[in-house]
Amino acid sequence: MSVYQKLVTLGVLLLSMALPCHLRAETGYDAWLRYSVLTDSERVKYGSLPASVVVFGESTVLHAAQQEMVRGVQGMLGRILRVGKDQVEEKAIVLGTLDGLRSVAPWLQGREGLHADGFWLTTGKIQGFDCVIITALKDRGVLYGMFAFLSKMARNESVAALNEVQQPYAPIRWVDQWDNLDGRIERGYAGPSIFFDNGNVRGDLTRARDYARLLASIGINGCTINNVNADPRVLEDSFLPELTRVADAFRLWGVQLAISVNLSSPKAVGGLDTFDPLDPRVEQWWRKRVDVLYREIPDFAGFVIKADSEGQAGPSTYNRTAADAANVIARALKPHGGIVFYRAFVYNHHLDWREPKNDRAKAAYDFFHPLDGKFEDNVIIQIKHGPIDFQVREPASPLFGGLRSTNQAIELQVTQEYMGQQRHLCFLAPMWKEVLDFDLHVGGGQTPVKDLVAGKVFHRPTGGFVGVVNVGMDANWLGHPLAMANLYAFGRLAWNPNLSASTLADEWTRLSFSSDPIVVKTIGAMQVASWHVYESYTGPLGAGTLTDILGSHYGPDVDSSERNGWGQWHRGDHEGIGMDRTVSTGTGYSGEYTAAVATLYESIATTPDELLLFFHHVPYTHVLHSGKTVIQHIYDSHYQGAEQAQHYVHQWESLKGRIDDERYAAVLARLEYQAGHAIVWRDAICTWFRRMSGIADAEKRVGNYPDRTEAESMQLEGYVPLDVMPPENASGGKAVECSPEAHRCVASLRFAAPAGWYELDVQYFDQNNGESTFRLLVGEQVIDEWVADDHLPAVKVGGDSSTRHRTKKLALRPGDRVRIEGTPDGREHAAFDYIEIRPAN
Amino acid sequence: MSVYQKLVTLGVLLLSMALPCHLRAETGYDAWLRYSVLTDSERVKYGSLPASVVVFGESTVLHAAQQEMVRGVQGMLGRILRVGKDQVEEKAIVLGTLDGLRSVAPWLQGREGLHADGFWLTTGKIQGFDCVIITALKDRGVLYGMFAFLSKMARNESVAALNEVQQPYAPIRWVDQWDNLDGRIERGYAGPSIFFDNGNVRGDLTRARDYARLLASIGINGCTINNVNADPRVLEDSFLPELTRVADAFRLWGVQLAISVNLSSPKAVGGLDTFDPLDPRVEQWWRKRVDVLYREIPDFAGFVIKADSEGQAGPSTYNRTAADAANVIARALKPHGGIVFYRAFVYNHHLDWREPKNDRAKAAYDFFHPLDGKFEDNVIIQIKHGPIDFQVREPASPLFGGLRSTNQAIELQVTQEYMGQQRHLCFLAPMWKEVLDFDLHVGGGQTPVKDLVAGKVFHRPTGGFVGVVNVGMDANWLGHPLAMANLYAFGRLAWNPNLSASTLADEWTRLSFSSDPIVVKTIGAMQVASWHVYESYTGPLGAGTLTDILGSHYGPDVDSSERNGWGQWHRGDHEGIGMDRTVSTGTGYSGEYTAAVATLYESIATTPDELLLFFHHVPYTHVLHSGKTVIQHIYDSHYQGAEQAQHYVHQWESLKGRIDDERYAAVLARLEYQAGHAIVWRDAICTWFRRMSGIADAEKRVGNYPDRTEAESMQLEGYVPLDVMPPENASGGKAVECSPEAHRCVASLRFAAPAGWYELDVQYFDQNNGESTFRLLVGEQVIDEWVADDHLPAVKVGGDSSTRHRTKKLALRPGDRVRIEGTPDGREHAAFDYIEIRPAN
Repeated sequence: MSVYQKLVTLGVLLLSMALPCHLRAETGYDAWLRYSVLTDSERVKYGSLPASVVVFGESTVLHAAQQEMVRGVQGMLGRILRVGKDQVEEKAIVLGTLDGLRSVAPWLQGREGLHADGFWLTTGKIQGFDCVIITALKDRGVLYGMFAFLSKMARNESVAALNEVQQPYAPIRWVDQWDNLDGRIERGYAGPSIFFDNGNVRGDLTRARDYARLLASIGINGCTINNVNADPRVLEDSFLPELTRVADAFRLWGVQLAISVNLSSPKAVGGLDTFDPLDPRVEQWWRKRVDVLYREIPDFAGFVIKADSEGQAGPSTYNRTAADAANVIARALKPHGGIVFYRAFVYNHHLDWREPKNDRAKAAYDFFHPLDGKFEDNVIIQIKHGPIDFQVREPASPLFGGLRSTNQAIELQVTQEYMGQQRHLCFLAPMWKEVLDFDLHVGGGQTPVKDLVAGKVFHRPTGGFVGVVNVGMDANWLGHPLAMANLYAFGRLAWNPNLSASTLADEWTRLSFSSDPIVVKTIGAMQVASWHVYESYTGPLGAGTLTDILGSHYGPDVDSSERNGWGQWHRGDHEGIGMDRTVSTGTGYSGEYTAAVATLYESIATTPDELLLFFHHVPYTHVLHSGKTVIQHIYDSHYQGAEQAQHYVHQWESLKGRIDDERYAAVLARLEYQAGHAIVWRDAICTWFRRMSGIADAEKRVGNYPDRTEAESMQLEGYVPLDVMPPENASGGKAVECSPEAHRCVASLRFAAPAGWYELDVQYFDQNNGESTFRLLVGEQVIDEWVADDHLPAVKVGGDSSTRHRTKKLALRPGDRVRIEGTPDGREHAAFDYIEIRPAN
Repeated sequence: MSVYQKLVTLGVLLLSMALPCHLRAETGYDAWLRYSVLTDSERVKYGSLPASVVVFGESTVLHAAQQEMVRGVQGMLGRILRVGKDQVEEKAIVLGTLDGLRSVAPWLQGREGLHADGFWLTTGKIQGFDCVIITALKDRGVLYGMFAFLSKMARNESVAALNEVQQPYAPIRWVDQWDNLDGRIERGYAGPSIFFDNGNVRGDLTRARDYARLLASIGINGCTINNVNADPRVLEDSFLPELTRVADAFRLWGVQLAISVNLSSPKAVGGLDTFDPLDPRVEQWWRKRVDVLYREIPDFAGFVIKADSEGQAGPSTYNRTAADAANVIARALKPHGGIVFYRAFVYNHHLDWREPKNDRAKAAYDFFHPLDGKFEDNVIIQIKHGPIDFQVREPASPLFGGLRSTNQAIELQVTQEYMGQQRHLCFLAPMWKEVLDFDLHVGGGQTPVKDLVAGKVFHRPTGGFVGVVNVGMDANWLGHPLAMANLYAFGRLAWNPNLSASTLADEWTRLSFSSDPIVVKTIGAMQVASWHVYESYTGPLGAGTLTDILGSHYGPDVDSSERNGWGQWHRGDHEGIGMDRTVSTGTGYSGEYTAAVATLYESIATTPDELLLFFHHVPYTHVLHSGKTVIQHIYDSHYQGAEQAQHYVHQWESLKGRIDDERYAAVLARLEYQAGHAIVWRDAICTWFRRMSGIADAEKRVGNYPDRTEAESMQLEGYVPLDVMPPENASGGKAVECSPEAHRCVASLRFAAPAGWYELDVQYFDQNNGESTFRLLVGEQVIDEWVADDHLPAVKVGGDSSTRHRTKKLALRPGDRVRIEGTPDGREHAAFDYIEIRPAN
């Protein structure tokens, strides 16, 4: 093996070791903990940093904190700190709890208000030497303080004369993973599970350990590792050693293990003939089960329960309430300090769509509000941020205001299920902030959602923040290198929801890429704009994401929301669109808010434009506060959004050479894909509304594509036309595909515009059940060749598979025969939709 | 597979395709043909470049030229040129021979002096349109013109209003590969053969084709693919289809195939009982063999012969001359236009070292000079540039002046056999230039070697330049990314030996990395200085490389040259050193030059310092022209050279972010290794001379290493001392190795210097027969860990395996126990030599 090959191998092997930055391949594995070497001028700031790091006390967490401090300083300054224990013999960075430091620094004691996981960064003399002190009540707080200290250095902030206390906003700062035991992840978009493989916990838990490190660095203290649609096997005796191994991997970083459990477990794996929560045998079973569990995992965190929802068994089987179900388990956990998260995502997915008063948005409130006060003190109701299901725009769930005597947590989704599935850039902090800061007016003063879930309003013993993350085995954790900003922002907001989205984007960019002002400004601008951009070319005005809700939740499909029992209705027809959720004429949903909020949403006049269609049914000609009609807003926003998605590519290209080549290339590929798919979205949504409303685009863009030639209009050899469903997912409603008997197919056209440089897009369909090859020829000249080998969530021709291939700056002359040649593979028939030829600029 | 993983795979798969630069991994595979995208401001220069490239005429070479032009322009400008044939319909780049363009551009004809492989870049109207014209007498000339045109663009030179003729200096511009049929390469340092594997030609010849493309781009027109120590099998009937496949792969790029043949072939594979060149059956056999060969490979180039040398059979078996042997084969080739290269590397390797008049340097001249004029016109005597064997410093071979009626070619070695084997940076153009420009004074006017080998002095029908390259399967061809400058420089010098070394370094850097002035200046300075730096820390004053000539030809071993029959003697003893090669008192070698040169070397007074020991034996106290004694010069130059090798690392580090991360890391790793190995060389050579001469270093450096602690002086657990041979290859003559029964060994010392930041080097032995692990600890703290898993040419503890591991900026305090912990593996016993601890700056 050559030195070069070895370096590459080494780069992969040593990803988690402290190596000089230039030896590491920038796969994104290190996320925001890169500790990349500071420039000479940046380093000056840390010239007087002590040469040793001394830990007081003995624990795996404190040991990890000390090791991490060595690693971080070595990465950033190239210095290897000496480690010491329980004694300071020179200037030092000192790590220890207040208790641990009591004998050597009595003057530290009595600090007001330091509680739970909070920490204190300060300076002072210990054993006669000037020290930087990182202290807390608990080991975990010291760990968090250490990460905060390194983060300051990585962002080149001063660490001189520190005196700073940070307290987390809420005790619950958890992440959930929806991993199945077979290794697949429900709504995971970055490879298989880092925890499970083939029915068991993985043998190598390096990834799990490194994930816990990332979580700890942003203050996350709990992690549920399996799907809420839970396999009862996780509670079998034989599985306990498996869970123990994960808990061991997490413990180093102060992350507590939790699991999702199936309410039917007493029957499914417990040998009982019932799982009735009020049956004493069931109660006893849970207690025994939990006692055994805590014997192996003393710091076990608790259970997450999804019941009576989307086919999961629940207390309704025995006519019991959710409180009955939660409490029987909560009582088993209570002696050990464990918690039950009971998900509020309970609704009837066979709702009668013909009944205009039916409304899925009301389900959580209707179900849980009456149970307020009936839950044990170690039960937390886990509430999705909006009343439906992580749509691109929803109001805050009224249930946050509906529970006053019950603990609650907000469930935010880091994995971009309805938000482009990490194929599209979509930084969610601005959306989360809108919900967290939204005042539900449930008390005298301000009662924003963040305070309600943190238990601050009604003085609850616990509560907080849960993020559904679904990282996978992809080297960069979430697939899209820029998507990790969402995990970072989630953790930071759980710690301090008062941080602004732009601060979070700034911090993340500095840590993940560079403090180069152009990099920080460019990536920051892209991230902060991205949610609104995504909204602009997908579902407008609160109508929902308008994706295919029956299938992939990915590409456009306006009709999929209608005429079925899932209740994600937008009620769009030829006259207008929107769910009337008012009390006066609609489903009454708005009445689930307190008066101040309900009044806001009850009237079209006061409902903000962006939620109009969530609350009201209006004609397409309705004039928005913006002055535009609804229909023209839909057209305009989709063209603007798609345009902004094209612009990402140029913004990113301006960073060439300012960041590492690996991530530059990986992100560019995703942004180029997104730019193409944004046009698929734009055209599908605009076409649907144009057809449904019968109202033309005032700007004459919709249905008018002067540079485009439909595949079905080209001269075809072997290719045959195909009707695409829904029709708006292909230009002109049709594509062409290779006929079954053809080995290779050709579509051609005669170019008629003036001679010059042109840019040529081929819109083709990249399914995941074949790898067709395409070639672009002009005359006999092969201009370009590509393989449709992406793994999009698509087995057929449609909006999920529609993909753009761009050929830049091609010389064309009138009379040229432009040919697309497709070679099918497997069940993918080299289908394409159109080509578009524009003068190159 | 994620998009990111796919990108990585794609990067590897598509290396040879025209893709935007950002999608390609910079492995070095593209060498100087990267065609990386120009900046916007650079592109402006080519705004009016035609949009089409039209070829006149039909041949694979012309087709390749047209495709390459499309590829180059697409890479650099992002534009896809349209291809045309035999007709211009708009402004175009036109490719064609003068013959091919005769009908459309009669005004081009009659250009004076355009011959053979030369080309003409010009502009003019063809069929009514303004065209850029690339023309030549032959297809291959058009190809070379096309590459010259793209090279100008890649270096951002203007291509407007071109009118430039370039002619190659000589017809022979060849490379040799010393590849064995089993896939190993004699003196190859970059992986196995790209041609052979397991006794046959490889199934996949992509690398061979891409190698031919690289060769063509610098004007190389022939390639010998197998070792000069030739396997007779290459002339078996069954092997002919294999050769044909290689010839087919080369033909596209105008590179003609040649092979090395064994003179005993008529007997070994031909079924005859003799290979006597004067036997008519032998003559007939060669003729038939060659006829069959040309039937399959009509453009076959010829044979290379090594005979009567280093154990190879030769005409001496039958008391025939080299001329008899060469001519019988030459006559067989002549009707087909083929050539015989007969290597002048013939010498007795059992020379009696006790006889002071014996001199290997005289062998080539003694052997071939008497045969001058006896060779057929299609025989070329292939002469190594110096009289010994590619040592770090040799005078030009006198044989260049000794053949007036015989064709000759100079053999230069691109593969760095004695020059650091691509582990050490050593740009050879400055050395080659010294030889090529050296005037042997054999005629009336100036008669530099370049003119002699080109046949210009004595008007020979052919002659020129042969480079021994030995590229391998390593992605970057030669192992060290910077080593490719040697192949580039060889090709360019074969085309035009009047180019300066700094011009070549400049061109190569721009093409291979970037036109960023800091990059060009830094890499240029490193390259141009590197031969002298390498010489400074290896063999001084013309004494030879002083490497282990009996083994690896890699690490230091002064004594290996002495007291054996190989004749690479330097005659160093306790009084002095040097081979007396004068006529008056020595071997008489200097008399093989013409009087003007002989006089120069005959006298110490006129012999340049750098060749002093090649020509004279002097006492160590002899004072050089520089004013220093020989012994002090040896000490000083070795310290300076090693210092400059350390400086390479800093020079390279200044380029961080200015070049791609992959090659940055790969080169940095080699430079850091070299910096350590230069100290091994420095210490070994200085120690040998100190011991031998008994004269101390005036600067008190030699034998005095204040920061160093010998391993054998440390407190050892499991480690045992080991005598190293030769002793100067280890500090203090000893190392320590793990005793056979120990699983893990420890050596420790008590640190006694003041508290502060320190840099720590561990000099360990990295053999290729095991992968030991080392850990560095301070107290219980693990500071560093590494694996001795490099593949150096070393199976034992010594100068070939001695390797430095550096730990930077480590906090140490008096009293600290510094420990080296070694875990042996296989036959590698975790040996190390010393540690050195210096204050970090």
